[in-house]
Amino acid sequence: MNKGLMIVISGPAGSGKGTVNAHLLATGDFVYSVSATTRAPREGEIDGVNYHYITKEEFLSRIESGDMLEYTEYCGNFYGTPKKEAEEVLASGKNLILEIEVEGARNVKARYPEAILILLLPPTFAVQEARLRGRATETEEKILERLARTKEELAFADAYDYVVYNHDGCDREAAQEIQAILQAERATLRRNAGVAERYFAN
Amino acid sequence: MNKGLMIVISGPAGSGKGTVNAHLLATGDFVYSVSATTRAPREGEIDGVNYHYITKEEFLSRIESGDMLEYTEYCGNFYGTPKKEAEEVLASGKNLILEIEVEGARNVKARYPEAILILLLPPTFAVQEARLRGRATETEEKILERLARTKEELAFADAYDYVVYNHDGCDREAAQEIQAILQAERATLRRNAGVAERYFAN
Repeated sequence: MNKGLMIVISGPAGSGKGTVNAHLLATGDFVYSVSATTRAPREGEIDGVNYHYITKEEFLSRIESGDMLEYTEYCGNFYGTPKKEAEEVLASGKNLILEIEVEGARNVKARYPEAILILLLPPTFAVQEARLRGRATETEEKILERLARTKEELAFADAYDYVVYNHDGCDREAAQEIQAILQAERATLRRNAGVAERYFAN
Repeated sequence: MNKGLMIVISGPAGSGKGTVNAHLLATGDFVYSVSATTRAPREGEIDGVNYHYITKEEFLSRIESGDMLEYTEYCGNFYGTPKKEAEEVLASGKNLILEIEVEGARNVKARYPEAILILLLPPTFAVQEARLRGRATETEEKILERLARTKEELAFADAYDYVVYNHDGCDREAAQEIQAILQAERATLRRNAGVAERYFAN
């Protein structure tokens, strides 16, 4: 059985990451990586679904023992990807989705060069802004903060392997495009070392 | 409109190149590059369909003027890809299929690093041999010559970007895989220079 592929999907608020991921998960070929965090669960969040909630001591000890595939500190809390779970998923042949931001994405790529980094974007910044305002669930301050963050993050767009645009109402097409990317990656020569040897051996 | 992609498809005898290409051409998104040659037309071959038949003088003059995208000499005859036609196809937004062998493929890549080199293979050498013998139209000598040539060519497998296996009765799946490769290639960051600039400009 082939090992699964590790895919990092990053995208700004309003890129539709959640819906695109839901389409991928629905195929049964993907598993979503649940991050560990030291921040307290918010109302409605479930341990093991939204995050694995662990103490700072445990988090630091897991960094120490090499069990965090990548991690970052943000506003005094740690966030990271448990390595053992990730490797179990890949060994099972399923593809693993890491939904992390640009810093974490670059850390993953540094440690796992075979990881596939995908940047999911709304078609334009203007569309992103319209989507965020259309939600009407966030304060103006929060919206401006998210838009500013997008500017910061896109400065690192070149760290990604692929850019996928998520047009309005096309979450399914964006998910299909990500599946095509995985199909192509599986066919790359660099993922098929020893082509000639295997060809003649059979 | 986006420019088309240049695709080199190489594959040994029995790989099913012809059928796979026919599936791609049937989508309307691909144009097959007709090579120029100095060899005489064989019975049934049509000028402009199988090859453009030109004189050696004209061929050499077109090399001289830079109008051959790649060319090779084989058994005293020249074979090459007319550059002007290729560029017109790409400018029209269609993808151009070059069906050439490994030497030509490497020449194309050297001159057009953005070309996508795909190696089409039967699942195994044993299957290839069975397919060639199953045709029953070729002499034993010719079959052995083709198999020997495959060994020579596969030594250069690493020159390719992708390897696509064409399983029995799956020409359509192989064609679909090639389309997925093109979709993925269009999404690569290296084909999307200036992502951030364009994102914020709109």
